[in-house]
Amino acid sequence: MTDADHGVRHAHTMEIEIATLGGYEEVGRQMTAVRAGEDIVIFDMGLNLSKVLIHDNVETESMHSLDLIDMGAIPDDRVMSELEGDVQAIVPTHGHLDHIAGIPKLAHRYDAPIVSAPYTIELVRQQIEDEGKFQVDNDLVKMKPGATMAIGDSEQVEMEFVNVTHSIIDAINPVLHTPEGAVVYGLDKRLDHDPVIGDPIDMERFREIGRQDEGVLAYIEDCTNAGRKGRTPSESYAKKHVEDTLKSMEDYTGGIVATTFSSHIARVKTLVEYAREIGRQPVLLGRSMEKYSGTAERLDFVDFQGDVGMYGHRKSVDRAFKRIMKEGKGNFLPIVTGHQGEPRAMLTRMGRGETPYEIDDGDKVVFSASVIPEPTNEGQRYQSEQLLRMQGARLYDDIHVSGHLREEGHYEMLQALQPQHLIPGHQTLEGRSPYVNLATSQGYKLGRDVHVTQNGSTIQLVE
Amino acid sequence: MTDADHGVRHAHTMEIEIATLGGYEEVGRQMTAVRAGEDIVIFDMGLNLSKVLIHDNVETESMHSLDLIDMGAIPDDRVMSELEGDVQAIVPTHGHLDHIAGIPKLAHRYDAPIVSAPYTIELVRQQIEDEGKFQVDNDLVKMKPGATMAIGDSEQVEMEFVNVTHSIIDAINPVLHTPEGAVVYGLDKRLDHDPVIGDPIDMERFREIGRQDEGVLAYIEDCTNAGRKGRTPSESYAKKHVEDTLKSMEDYTGGIVATTFSSHIARVKTLVEYAREIGRQPVLLGRSMEKYSGTAERLDFVDFQGDVGMYGHRKSVDRAFKRIMKEGKGNFLPIVTGHQGEPRAMLTRMGRGETPYEIDDGDKVVFSASVIPEPTNEGQRYQSEQLLRMQGARLYDDIHVSGHLREEGHYEMLQALQPQHLIPGHQTLEGRSPYVNLATSQGYKLGRDVHVTQNGSTIQLVE
Amino acid sequence: MTDADHGVRHAHTMEIEIATLGGYEEVGRQMTAVRAGEDIVIFDMGLNLSKVLIHDNVETESMHSLDLIDMGAIPDDRVMSELEGDVQAIVPTHGHLDHIAGIPKLAHRYDAPIVSAPYTIELVRQQIEDEGKFQVDNDLVKMKPGATMAIGDSEQVEMEFVNVTHSIIDAINPVLHTPEGAVVYGLDKRLDHDPVIGDPIDMERFREIGRQDEGVLAYIEDCTNAGRKGRTPSESYAKKHVEDTLKSMEDYTGGIVATTFSSHIARVKTLVEYAREIGRQPVLLGRSMEKYSGTAERLDFVDFQGDVGMYGHRKSVDRAFKRIMKEGKGNFLPIVTGHQGEPRAMLTRMGRGETPYEIDDGDKVVFSASVIPEPTNEGQRYQSEQLLRMQGARLYDDIHVSGHLREEGHYEMLQALQPQHLIPGHQTLEGRSPYVNLATSQGYKLGRDVHVTQNGSTIQLVE
Amino acid sequence: MTDADHGVRHAHTMEIEIATLGGYEEVGRQMTAVRAGEDIVIFDMGLNLSKVLIHDNVETESMHSLDLIDMGAIPDDRVMSELEGDVQAIVPTHGHLDHIAGIPKLAHRYDAPIVSAPYTIELVRQQIEDEGKFQVDNDLVKMKPGATMAIGDSEQVEMEFVNVTHSIIDAINPVLHTPEGAVVYGLDKRLDHDPVIGDPIDMERFREIGRQDEGVLAYIEDCTNAGRKGRTPSESYAKKHVEDTLKSMEDYTGGIVATTFSSHIARVKTLVEYAREIGRQPVLLGRSMEKYSGTAERLDFVDFQGDVGMYGHRKSVDRAFKRIMKEGKGNFLPIVTGHQGEPRAMLTRMGRGETPYEIDDGDKVVFSASVIPEPTNEGQRYQSEQLLRMQGARLYDDIHVSGHLREEGHYEMLQALQPQHLIPGHQTLEGRSPYVNLATSQGYKLGRDVHVTQNGSTIQLVE
Repeated sequence: MTDADHGVRHAHTMEIEIATLGGYEEVGRQMTAVRAGEDIVIFDMGLNLSKVLIHDNVETESMHSLDLIDMGAIPDDRVMSELEGDVQAIVPTHGHLDHIAGIPKLAHRYDAPIVSAPYTIELVRQQIEDEGKFQVDNDLVKMKPGATMAIGDSEQVEMEFVNVTHSIIDAINPVLHTPEGAVVYGLDKRLDHDPVIGDPIDMERFREIGRQDEGVLAYIEDCTNAGRKGRTPSESYAKKHVEDTLKSMEDYTGGIVATTFSSHIARVKTLVEYAREIGRQPVLLGRSMEKYSGTAERLDFVDFQGDVGMYGHRKSVDRAFKRIMKEGKGNFLPIVTGHQGEPRAMLTRMGRGETPYEIDDGDKVVFSASVIPEPTNEGQRYQSEQLLRMQGARLYDDIHVSGHLREEGHYEMLQALQPQHLIPGHQTLEGRSPYVNLATSQGYKLGRDVHVTQNGSTIQLVE
Repeated sequence: MTDADHGVRHAHTMEIEIATLGGYEEVGRQMTAVRAGEDIVIFDMGLNLSKVLIHDNVETESMHSLDLIDMGAIPDDRVMSELEGDVQAIVPTHGHLDHIAGIPKLAHRYDAPIVSAPYTIELVRQQIEDEGKFQVDNDLVKMKPGATMAIGDSEQVEMEFVNVTHSIIDAINPVLHTPEGAVVYGLDKRLDHDPVIGDPIDMERFREIGRQDEGVLAYIEDCTNAGRKGRTPSESYAKKHVEDTLKSMEDYTGGIVATTFSSHIARVKTLVEYAREIGRQPVLLGRSMEKYSGTAERLDFVDFQGDVGMYGHRKSVDRAFKRIMKEGKGNFLPIVTGHQGEPRAMLTRMGRGETPYEIDDGDKVVFSASVIPEPTNEGQRYQSEQLLRMQGARLYDDIHVSGHLREEGHYEMLQALQPQHLIPGHQTLEGRSPYVNLATSQGYKLGRDVHVTQNGSTIQLVE
Repeated sequence: MTDADHGVRHAHTMEIEIATLGGYEEVGRQMTAVRAGEDIVIFDMGLNLSKVLIHDNVETESMHSLDLIDMGAIPDDRVMSELEGDVQAIVPTHGHLDHIAGIPKLAHRYDAPIVSAPYTIELVRQQIEDEGKFQVDNDLVKMKPGATMAIGDSEQVEMEFVNVTHSIIDAINPVLHTPEGAVVYGLDKRLDHDPVIGDPIDMERFREIGRQDEGVLAYIEDCTNAGRKGRTPSESYAKKHVEDTLKSMEDYTGGIVATTFSSHIARVKTLVEYAREIGRQPVLLGRSMEKYSGTAERLDFVDFQGDVGMYGHRKSVDRAFKRIMKEGKGNFLPIVTGHQGEPRAMLTRMGRGETPYEIDDGDKVVFSASVIPEPTNEGQRYQSEQLLRMQGARLYDDIHVSGHLREEGHYEMLQALQPQHLIPGHQTLEGRSPYVNLATSQGYKLGRDVHVTQNGSTIQLVE
Repeated sequence: MTDADHGVRHAHTMEIEIATLGGYEEVGRQMTAVRAGEDIVIFDMGLNLSKVLIHDNVETESMHSLDLIDMGAIPDDRVMSELEGDVQAIVPTHGHLDHIAGIPKLAHRYDAPIVSAPYTIELVRQQIEDEGKFQVDNDLVKMKPGATMAIGDSEQVEMEFVNVTHSIIDAINPVLHTPEGAVVYGLDKRLDHDPVIGDPIDMERFREIGRQDEGVLAYIEDCTNAGRKGRTPSESYAKKHVEDTLKSMEDYTGGIVATTFSSHIARVKTLVEYAREIGRQPVLLGRSMEKYSGTAERLDFVDFQGDVGMYGHRKSVDRAFKRIMKEGKGNFLPIVTGHQGEPRAMLTRMGRGETPYEIDDGDKVVFSASVIPEPTNEGQRYQSEQLLRMQGARLYDDIHVSGHLREEGHYEMLQALQPQHLIPGHQTLEGRSPYVNLATSQGYKLGRDVHVTQNGSTIQLVE
């Protein structure tokens, strides 16, 4: 399909092939492999949690890969056997489960290190430790944003990590530099010039890569929010919203509770900061709250400064709640799990009266998160809100900005990279459609240089 | 892209190529060409009216093709010069404007007859007569559903018209029988086993074609409603709705007005029939009402029996309204244009008090149509409804069923035809996505045998 | 507030007071009391099931009234003590749970018979039998639509049952004839002139009541669908839809399953009828399916004719499913519970593979019901659909018409009854708003003769 | 209706009556009168523009009041004759048309001054000057937020202006202090503690009024956004959004255009400020842009500092555009009218290519406004966006926060004021419903102390 196109170009020195393994029919279980000559790099190995949760009583830890593949929960990597080359690295871009949680089930099949930014590697290590079925012995290699590493022995392929900004710290976009041009793996990011934690997105580097002689051969893009107009605001805009919200409660002497994505360290930091500004001691509660924030603090990504309690185990959580009730709810701001109304999460249990924390009339609950738009979620979140309201809680929702690019962010990336080929991902076909529309409005053509594929397909870019 | 696939098959005797010219990025300006060896057939040459109406004061009759192409109003047929063969026929499938209204602007470029079912041909003739810019001299050939004709001189290609059911009478699906299998052009239809006028859809013939030795090489499908669950009900279900609605008004002695798509002869017939059942004389008012129903009656597709007035010109309409007002609104049921709230249509003018028909408190307006879901339409329809309500009208909306297949109709067509290749059309990429999802759930694969293209692309199915 | 109004009228012979006890802040737990002089009639005593289900592990059978009142599940009838008079009858209008399921918890507080149409009384009897906490000894009195009974000893108050049409058989609208005019209790109905089972709505009688000398003092109205434009179609329209849908599957030889409201006997009858028309034996499965249809058949409301299996208990259901699997799914049409995706209902269990009935690729599931628009429901229904789709099922949804009036039905009722006062009910305030808008557009005025109240309020219409 | 309630209280010294004249069935044409003893104050006299625009070719300037009343465009003030007292002041709360544009048509009927904050008075003066039909001679009296004035000669009634924050500068909430308690007229506001221009909302004063001995007798509230959860963010949050958006365009050298509500001076100021920060000269274009910003600058509400061109007349606008095109679009940021897609506004004309400003591929259009959710608006805005996109414009929409309270703002006001009676306004009944739900959840009761009325009603609070 690209023959005519390539026929007029110079003789190629290296075959480039891309396998779209997961996340091309859904948001979840991301996985893409790029072969440059003899060398293959796998980007992301994710899990689609909703495919697990629809079944009753499923414990992924003890399940076999094939069963999880059949359920659509992890990528079906069987097409990898068709790629003629050796996997040199498995590269998760950041620590969200839809990018790393397939690793415990799939990585052991490949004789290759797992390479990512430090925070991500630490989360991968914890995933592997929790795995109950497989022994995963792949090396874990930390590489910082901005750094590069040689891929394979050809001395022709190099991998670079470009610093990007997302709803989790230490996110990168890996770039595979090949003689045929760069392959940029663009999952997941927003263009944030003021990201609260860490450096702004390195647009200058993207522009440089776009201007290189060989240019960008292919750009694999995160289409999560491609159908939304305008651009995604900065995390500092969410920070302003948290500030505005919490400060408006400054005079309130009763209970205030906040919930957000536990992996969203910048947001947790903001909540911690403004909790103190309004005279309350922040306390992180829930297993994943403790895990992500604790890890971030140990790795020096964040310094919460002073006394921030973090409690993960049921008993210590209960003890913390009891102390809060005793010392006065007005002195604390619990930051808890449960922003999507997950039935067993902390906030839902608080709504059901199953914790020692008592919600009184007028107490405030701040959802620093949006509702993931899927009927199951919406139903659960609604139930959780009803339970909280039945106890008199006042609700503040949607104090949030997304971590994913919208239409104008995509436009800016196209301007910066000027890619030859586009491979939209991280969405259903319907979800990728607005991205294709943008691309074709900029002169790309479906089937020629915009590649709309399914899970399990391969694209031969250079033959 | 399909090489591997076809490599294992017998040596081919005939090249098959498909050009997707219009309606692959929108609903509107449908046009597709199929080349079988040296012979080409063009299916549909439509107009996208909304691309015209967004401009102020545009009169298409006197415009040049190139300007209309630039506006996105008619198909850009320049890629036709790349197809190596001769156009043997231009085949509109039915008489809607998005299928025939490009003919006056484009058909003269091809030395080929226009072939369609009789009612469609008659509407094409009227289109050509109204054209002010081009001289269109192509032969007009009537061919009935079920009939066949040879295409070109190869004696290997034959075109058949299969009877289908749509929201206009005399709709067909043309099938091109080639040595490589049949190419079925599936725009536009629903599976109606009781269509009020004409024969049911000929599913038996589709199944036969699917069972033929060479089978169906390619199926080009109408995705308008592919994203809606279930199946589209029969026109007889809409008839039941009209019956239920009008009979509930039997005791009302004031004004009742109905509006529907003027080209929807079956619906007009139903309205005429139940108007009489509740003791009212039906009167058709508005230029397009007169045109479509008058043509249908002259061609014996419908016999309204007895006295049905049809008035198109402003003066005769006003005279009819005056007579109605004089003889008593309770004796009549005007069936008028304006179901989408078009600013200059009859019903909107009635709402503005610009006709002699006075709407009184309690008078009833029956919209036997759905609102086409597009913000401009919705705004206009809303305004029209507000104007009618300001005069006291009672509104009955959505007394309608669509003429387009939904998900389960598509599933049934796949079961019947078992096509090798699928080419979804008649929608944006987003609108075609649910169809692709259906196809892939049935084992098809994007890029292999499901072809998602843009306007102006070609697909080489057999090389 | 109505003083000025009534001040100009003749001296009153009887005080009329209305207590709006339940269903004035929700759809659910309907209850209204009307006092005419010394005599009180209670209309409906319902349950709001969603207020129960939001709690884990709640069994209403063994719960005390006060706890259920606190939960908002049954009406708070404490304001009844303020009405000076004796309750002479408790009158549920039809057998839906939001109208009768409060009876086992509340009726024993009143020394009055429960009076309703025969089918309703039978369902009330079963409710009372299932009650585990209270002894309910009220007399159960059957009175047919069209019949009347004296209320109290004044010889001035009479209750009449007007036949209406709803989504359950034997629904009535009770009318209390008083010297001050009629009080018409209008819950729940649609205007159906062809209702599949039973007589059409008795609009002639409503018009007569409206024309009586003393006229209609007050009309209490069901606002469930007041915000929807147009009119609710007849049950015969749903029947046509079922016919169209099932007949389109006539050639299918695999499994077809249907689900609908188990209390909707007319719909069950239609499904039974068209199951046979396409050569399949209908089987009713699920406890409530057996209960409602069995009761209807015993009371001669429906004659399913021939062999319709009804199985309620788990074991007999499993046995029936095994027989179906053995004799061939193509010979049967199971009609099951689970149309809202209720987690423990039959269809959901079938989706989870928990029954012996195996759903194969291409099998068809017909939802002859709409989704009740509430996030919890929507989430559960979505999950159920996902489970069915995972097994290859084809889904046909929304083969249904509502049992509640829309805007134009309300308009017709106002025209027929010409009531002095309107009391919109059976909805939240937001849900009643469109009804109030209709009323004010017809000259009524909020606070003067349109009474928008809350649960627990009283309205003194005649002092 | 409130008799029982008030019967137990002390003997009253003053009758308090409230007439709800406009804005109680719509958003638009606000007008409310409060009578305290012999003295009446009218709050707001607005226009409902949409009722005018639905008609073709209507010019309000030359129309008679009665015609505008019949159209529903201005309040029907006939019920004023039933209030026994003298109008002492007409008090618009701020300068939006739905609060002041009825003044030229109605104020001359009352022998009373128009009293408001300085900016509002200036806008009223301009309205009166443009009036073509009536001679309006009422005195115009400026009174600053925080100030008070005596009402009438009783020495018992005083009016105070409490400073509030809205989407226009100099907004106030008038409070009528009476012996029966304060009547607080709460239209329109949000609780903004950092409003970009002017002082924060004076919550401290509201709390003081709530704590006064006689307390708050009645609170008339703006329900525009009562149905939205959470609280409305501060204008400084919108400022942050503008900053984030414009700074992201800092490197762009082509055209950038912004549009916002012309009366929203704080937003215009923000746009001006960040235009300069990214090295562009701001230019205000369009008649209403010039009017509102020019007036604000003359009155020293804003100092745009340096050279901000403002051009209102067609010729000077064209000249400005020509200069921009000549000196380079990259040096300017035009701030124009047209945020709702109004057919004749500047931005729409730019989209149609009717101005000298040429929009090129990649040029950016910033909508610092939300779309007013009404089908006519949505249709027009959609058309405008389509026209802009056809020229290659990139769109950034919804850079905005509303000026109206949401649910939690209402909750806070109830906490602060602790009013005896609530009168929700500035919405349809449906729109007021969420407010009533909030109120009843806080112990208020419909018909007792929450008064849901229509236009033209009176409420006797103290008799």
